[in-house]
Amino acid sequence: MENCRVEELSKYLKKTAEKINGYLVGYLEQKKDAPPIIIEAMRYSVFAGGKRLRPILTLATAEMLGGKDSYRNAIPAACAIEMIHTYSLIHDDLPCMDNDDYRRGQLTNHKKFGENIAVLAGDALLTHAFYIISKYSEPQFTAKLVELLSYYSGIDGMLGGQVLDVINENKEIDNIEIVQNIHLKKTAALIKCSILLGAVCGYADKKTLKILENFGENIGLAFQIVDDILDLTETTEQLGKPAGSDLKKKKSTYPAIIGIENSKKLAYELLEKSKKLLTKLEFNTELLAQIAELLVNRNK
Amino acid sequence: MENCRVEELSKYLKKTAEKINGYLVGYLEQKKDAPPIIIEAMRYSVFAGGKRLRPILTLATAEMLGGKDSYRNAIPAACAIEMIHTYSLIHDDLPCMDNDDYRRGQLTNHKKFGENIAVLAGDALLTHAFYIISKYSEPQFTAKLVELLSYYSGIDGMLGGQVLDVINENKEIDNIEIVQNIHLKKTAALIKCSILLGAVCGYADKKTLKILENFGENIGLAFQIVDDILDLTETTEQLGKPAGSDLKKKKSTYPAIIGIENSKKLAYELLEKSKKLLTKLEFNTELLAQIAELLVNRNK
Repeated sequence: MENCRVEELSKYLKKTAEKINGYLVGYLEQKKDAPPIIIEAMRYSVFAGGKRLRPILTLATAEMLGGKDSYRNAIPAACAIEMIHTYSLIHDDLPCMDNDDYRRGQLTNHKKFGENIAVLAGDALLTHAFYIISKYSEPQFTAKLVELLSYYSGIDGMLGGQVLDVINENKEIDNIEIVQNIHLKKTAALIKCSILLGAVCGYADKKTLKILENFGENIGLAFQIVDDILDLTETTEQLGKPAGSDLKKKKSTYPAIIGIENSKKLAYELLEKSKKLLTKLEFNTELLAQIAELLVNRNK
Repeated sequence: MENCRVEELSKYLKKTAEKINGYLVGYLEQKKDAPPIIIEAMRYSVFAGGKRLRPILTLATAEMLGGKDSYRNAIPAACAIEMIHTYSLIHDDLPCMDNDDYRRGQLTNHKKFGENIAVLAGDALLTHAFYIISKYSEPQFTAKLVELLSYYSGIDGMLGGQVLDVINENKEIDNIEIVQNIHLKKTAALIKCSILLGAVCGYADKKTLKILENFGENIGLAFQIVDDILDLTETTEQLGKPAGSDLKKKKSTYPAIIGIENSKKLAYELLEKSKKLLTKLEFNTELLAQIAELLVNRNK
């Protein structure tokens, strides 16, 4: 029974990721005006084998609340959030940031295309995300979708988290609240946003939005704690990027402050909290709960 | 009489720039969540003394077509386009791009804050531009405003132009069509966009949009040709950035290929063409025509 559930979830994730990839191909087609090199650089990182967790969360939430129509309406926003996620990885990898040579088992964007094109490929994906939402979403949703995406990926969200990460690098941080603040902004904000974009397309009311916001924050924080743990416990081959790099860069992580076992315990507590939040919704939240579990019980 | 007209225009530009600055201050206020350093870095470049030509074009167009209400409705979009313009300058100045130390008479953003914060300040302004539009515009305009801004600042517009600029640097280009293509994308696209944002807020019909699009393209190209000329003929002090830097970097410019005199002649031809386009509109286009003249007859 348990095996059967895992298999079904795995099928759903694969099918949805394929669907998202198909739309991403279409949204990143070479048109007559854009220089081919920038499209190539954008595609290089977008199609580097990401798991599409964020767009899957968007589509799963939309379908849970509003059915097939909402699922379809959420597709541009789902692809947009994957573009935003990818832009952030390209810029994070730059020599002036984390200076990483590998990501997902392949050369980072600037190692492949040069630093100037990598900066521009990031800018391009960020800009294109808003183009795709505004051009292809149902107009009734556009203003709210753009507001959510720009808010949670901007100075109060993901980008703010990256700023905190940069200014705290190489500092000996022993304050768990600072680490929590960085993680909430840098990772949890965009995961929360993925869910809220789907909720908007699913006509969520205020109460539902609030519950899903809390759910997204808890599961997003758990996701990043697991990321910190995997960086210490998994091999470079398994991760597709150098293992132990947080330690080398003196990044602020949960395991560095409270240890691996306590970090694991906390991740599971956050998972339980988020699953409990789902029970407050009068929808079939089974799929979201399963995805939440997967985000915590992963090995890469 | 001529003097009086110039004085009036100058007063209008000053008053409008002050109004825009007031809104920019509000839109870039420190809120509790964003790290103060990123707000400081964003403000540093936004308030470095830009002439606010793009937002002025947005507001002048909106008011011409729809009066005071349209002017007010266009304010978020006007400020957003100035943020987009500023982000592009910050990223263009980076060591991996033009590697400039000064801009508008002060240190460039990365010289002041470091390369990592400068990349993030650019990303932040780009993201915040869409936040401001989606949060503060009349919802009926939002989708179209976001679509225009992301299109003309993205891979088919300004960003595409920057890519062409980067890949053609240090090449001996003698083909005026390549230079024109770079200029149309890198500079004219955003100037055209400024005008179209105003036109949308002024309820422009399709015919009006088409005429203003052509007007914007012509005046935008003229603006960049004048920029190329000034880089050769004005002093560093006058420009606030190193004079002659295009030549040093082997940038593709009009004067480099057709000479200064022919470039001047072309800029005036484009100005005449754009003024003629305005006569096709059944609105009082006097102010737009005057601004167009100013864009060509400037000395910095």
